[in-house]
Amino acid sequence: MSWEKLVDRRDIDAIHICTPDNLHRDIALAAAQAGKHIFCEKPPALDATEARQMYERAEASGVKHMVNFVYRGVPAIQLARRLIRDGRLAIPYHFQGFYHQDFALSEDFPFAWRMDKGAAGAGTMADKGSHVVDLARFLVGELSEVSCRSASFVERRKDAKTGEERRATTNDAAVFTGTFENGALGVFETSNMSAGCRNAMYLELNGSKGSLRFNLERLNELEAFFAEDAEEIQGFRSIVVTQPVHRYVRHWWPPGHALDWEHAFVHSVYEFLQAIAEDRQPEPSFYDGMKCQQVVDALTEADRVKR
Amino acid sequence: MSWEKLVDRRDIDAIHICTPDNLHRDIALAAAQAGKHIFCEKPPALDATEARQMYERAEASGVKHMVNFVYRGVPAIQLARRLIRDGRLAIPYHFQGFYHQDFALSEDFPFAWRMDKGAAGAGTMADKGSHVVDLARFLVGELSEVSCRSASFVERRKDAKTGEERRATTNDAAVFTGTFENGALGVFETSNMSAGCRNAMYLELNGSKGSLRFNLERLNELEAFFAEDAEEIQGFRSIVVTQPVHRYVRHWWPPGHALDWEHAFVHSVYEFLQAIAEDRQPEPSFYDGMKCQQVVDALTEADRVKR
Amino acid sequence: MSWEKLVDRRDIDAIHICTPDNLHRDIALAAAQAGKHIFCEKPPALDATEARQMYERAEASGVKHMVNFVYRGVPAIQLARRLIRDGRLAIPYHFQGFYHQDFALSEDFPFAWRMDKGAAGAGTMADKGSHVVDLARFLVGELSEVSCRSASFVERRKDAKTGEERRATTNDAAVFTGTFENGALGVFETSNMSAGCRNAMYLELNGSKGSLRFNLERLNELEAFFAEDAEEIQGFRSIVVTQPVHRYVRHWWPPGHALDWEHAFVHSVYEFLQAIAEDRQPEPSFYDGMKCQQVVDALTEADRVKR
Amino acid sequence: MSWEKLVDRRDIDAIHICTPDNLHRDIALAAAQAGKHIFCEKPPALDATEARQMYERAEASGVKHMVNFVYRGVPAIQLARRLIRDGRLAIPYHFQGFYHQDFALSEDFPFAWRMDKGAAGAGTMADKGSHVVDLARFLVGELSEVSCRSASFVERRKDAKTGEERRATTNDAAVFTGTFENGALGVFETSNMSAGCRNAMYLELNGSKGSLRFNLERLNELEAFFAEDAEEIQGFRSIVVTQPVHRYVRHWWPPGHALDWEHAFVHSVYEFLQAIAEDRQPEPSFYDGMKCQQVVDALTEADRVKR
Repeated sequence: MSWEKLVDRRDIDAIHICTPDNLHRDIALAAAQAGKHIFCEKPPALDATEARQMYERAEASGVKHMVNFVYRGVPAIQLARRLIRDGRLAIPYHFQGFYHQDFALSEDFPFAWRMDKGAAGAGTMADKGSHVVDLARFLVGELSEVSCRSASFVERRKDAKTGEERRATTNDAAVFTGTFENGALGVFETSNMSAGCRNAMYLELNGSKGSLRFNLERLNELEAFFAEDAEEIQGFRSIVVTQPVHRYVRHWWPPGHALDWEHAFVHSVYEFLQAIAEDRQPEPSFYDGMKCQQVVDALTEADRVKR
Repeated sequence: MSWEKLVDRRDIDAIHICTPDNLHRDIALAAAQAGKHIFCEKPPALDATEARQMYERAEASGVKHMVNFVYRGVPAIQLARRLIRDGRLAIPYHFQGFYHQDFALSEDFPFAWRMDKGAAGAGTMADKGSHVVDLARFLVGELSEVSCRSASFVERRKDAKTGEERRATTNDAAVFTGTFENGALGVFETSNMSAGCRNAMYLELNGSKGSLRFNLERLNELEAFFAEDAEEIQGFRSIVVTQPVHRYVRHWWPPGHALDWEHAFVHSVYEFLQAIAEDRQPEPSFYDGMKCQQVVDALTEADRVKR
Repeated sequence: MSWEKLVDRRDIDAIHICTPDNLHRDIALAAAQAGKHIFCEKPPALDATEARQMYERAEASGVKHMVNFVYRGVPAIQLARRLIRDGRLAIPYHFQGFYHQDFALSEDFPFAWRMDKGAAGAGTMADKGSHVVDLARFLVGELSEVSCRSASFVERRKDAKTGEERRATTNDAAVFTGTFENGALGVFETSNMSAGCRNAMYLELNGSKGSLRFNLERLNELEAFFAEDAEEIQGFRSIVVTQPVHRYVRHWWPPGHALDWEHAFVHSVYEFLQAIAEDRQPEPSFYDGMKCQQVVDALTEADRVKR
Repeated sequence: MSWEKLVDRRDIDAIHICTPDNLHRDIALAAAQAGKHIFCEKPPALDATEARQMYERAEASGVKHMVNFVYRGVPAIQLARRLIRDGRLAIPYHFQGFYHQDFALSEDFPFAWRMDKGAAGAGTMADKGSHVVDLARFLVGELSEVSCRSASFVERRKDAKTGEERRATTNDAAVFTGTFENGALGVFETSNMSAGCRNAMYLELNGSKGSLRFNLERLNELEAFFAEDAEEIQGFRSIVVTQPVHRYVRHWWPPGHALDWEHAFVHSVYEFLQAIAEDRQPEPSFYDGMKCQQVVDALTEADRVKR
């Protein structure tokens, strides 16, 4: 069944958009038009103009809309947010957001749709960058200014199906900095070619009263430092976020038994469905998607202008 | 005894400059003039113009000259360099250089000369930044382009002696990116106010065949990933750099017994004295000091222009 | 439906025994009698006599039988076994097997069936000890001699339902040593009251050519040291066991995306069903259960005799 | 000059005994007789009888006496002791003390005096074991009962000087358990042949209110867990023990700058000299040496009896 028909079906209340990025906008607009609630994979769209259309149409249609920035569904990220909200870090000073993988390290890794600018937009700034930008917004606040530099290390790869050599039109890696509206500094890096980094999203936030560290390769842990601890015993504590007191966790296993990546998806869907059930707007919404996409667009522009 | 008299003494062959930064140039010029070999603490000078004068005068005088970028004297850093030189990482893709401390975190921390632009120049970009920029040059190569943003989080502090409030004219933190001449990307951060980071200089280099990681808080370790290992057993290995086979180590303790920060100073002095004994120029020289300072100046300028 | 009726149902081919330990034997004997394949949670029985009956009856009945020592289903444990089988560690010298949790740390933690000797047998030596003894057998070999000392730290706890105080008749912790038939030494510890240890099963095996380390709180990682690596770059490597080349992994997520505890159960069931489909005996079988239970019995006896 | 003459010299106030173990007793007795204060390397003697003679003679002579159990001089160990003394762990439940090195892993490693029972006594139980037993006594209390099993993995080695093959009469590794007078359990391991363990002394203490972990390969860190922290943010904190507030540290470098193994020796000598200056008995004294040696003797006996 084509997506056009699917969004019109009467027996469907909500649509999950998990196509390549270049179809997100059209499906979302049609689904909103048809009064369906929308759960959309990230990045929301190819650019901020599309993301704004999605947001405005969804709002106008009165449907619930959510972008699946899935790492908000990791219990350790929820704990980070709560500690920040509770003022445990006080004033944010600087934030690090890195997302390194190495799936494309080998020159033999085939051409994929993510390497095609037409289908995937801004490359690692969009694919991985949208994750770290969303988490920067979630944990620190809005960015007001950015600088960016990207690079392509392997420009030609073979198409897995045709065997034909194709030119990668997106980037393999990017470094960028930003200033937050609250005065904090941010530093970011995204790469598909970091040898040994299987799925290494690393976040660190340093504030005037404490610091937090998170590493996706150890996603059941959150490291936290509190400057208010007695001086002699201050230290980064590694909180094993698998206890009933931690968000989402009591619905799963006994204390101490690890969760992983897939549970974050379950938590995202839970947030979406729960919001529908309670007739309120879930987060992160298409507004968050639009704000994130504006940053990604600004990164692309900053990268282009400097060359 | 004043430094002016000291540099003229006949019974002295070499001068160690360990004054505040704003005296480095004058002492170095006088020492070179007097035919003394020079070992100068970092950063070499207040700006690249001074650093160039130092380099040119030392070269013209025929003396040996060295800037004490002390972390080159850490055995793990020497091992990193050797692995890179041996081609174990192949093409460098991206480099991370962070130097976080938290000594100035408290608002009660007193005003120090490092916070006075007149005495300390470019703030954390100079003080900490010169370390990570020197190591970037040592491990990756020359930078061709930079971007920078600094911040001051506590602008007024009390003078420890007078009790008077003084305005900090340097920065507390900076984030910057760079592009290397060989195409690699670099991302950097320096801060005196990172809660919980006692002396956390963190370096990471990702190349087409491997990666290296170093953390100054665990300076006897170097982490290395080699993509040429059999796929099933690939992983970042934590090399405990305390074995006789590692540079400098066999002159110290039995295998496995840790070195620390002070030994790096001993190694630097060894390199300086050994070069004098063998009548060759030690490294890092005033040339390296000048090149590093040019990057620091460019960071300051990039930071200024954008505001 | 009672278990007696369940094991006789014609439309059932296989039985999963997940009752308290004191029912395992009777259900297993009846299920074997009825020609059902049997998948039994660990420890297999209250003592080695029961475990032997289970093994002998299942063999005599010709059914497939498996004890769910679930940690054999963790990909990192499978990798450990394969590296050992391939001779990468050569001669085993010593093995550490620790299993620490802290669920019972608080004196307010209620009385549970695991604390009643009648229902749970040998306490932590049976509950946690059977896991580490099974893994010791899986990775190193048969034990020939043991020594043991257990302790109870909180002897009376309240029954959660009745509110009545009850005496815990099993132990809270035990330490034990063993000698393997191949000459290796083993050292073990089990505890329900190790503050901060949420689910900390730690294994280490040191052999004449290398070492392995595993920590259940980071179950996607296996640390390995190979003495045959070039001396300068020897180190414990942290293998992120989430790549398609690792056992079971390619059936799950993209590279680098974590698995957790529940997947090990899926893998155990897969092994059971696959063995039935291929008409061969799965591992670990009731024979392994019996051998493990013999060690647990010997620990109990060693602990008793010394007092 | 022979030691006999040295201990009689009038211009010497104190003697440092750093000979092979089989000379400790005679030198100590003579030095005490001559009224010299004594600083003796560990283990204090070949057996508890000798250690008792040393203790009694030193006491009778009124000299100050200290055994250099050097790891008590590590700031992190001092912090551990202080936290325990302050009741932060409350009732001790179990203690782990492991000391693994790999210097003797290769079969080509030459015969050394430590492998000769006549010169070195009880092998790894004495050499490494005395360290962990002393720290167990320092941190937990007196042991009341032990069990032990040792092993020799390479029985014949070449003498480095003569090239002749010699039989190692001590052990290469040992595992042992113990019960403390206060009811805690202890588990221990010592080895010279643990591949990849350069100098891996690992200690862990779990108590009713918290836990501590220490790893000699990262000796500037102490990990601490406090069950009294708010449940949501409980975790092992890694305390970087390089701050002015930590014992001994303010006399060295700026905050955050690592110390190492050699500084522990300086601290031991400081304790010895300071006690002489203040006319009080330093710790660990020959009494501690004797108590430690009694445990080592008991381990040797337990190991012998069981064979």
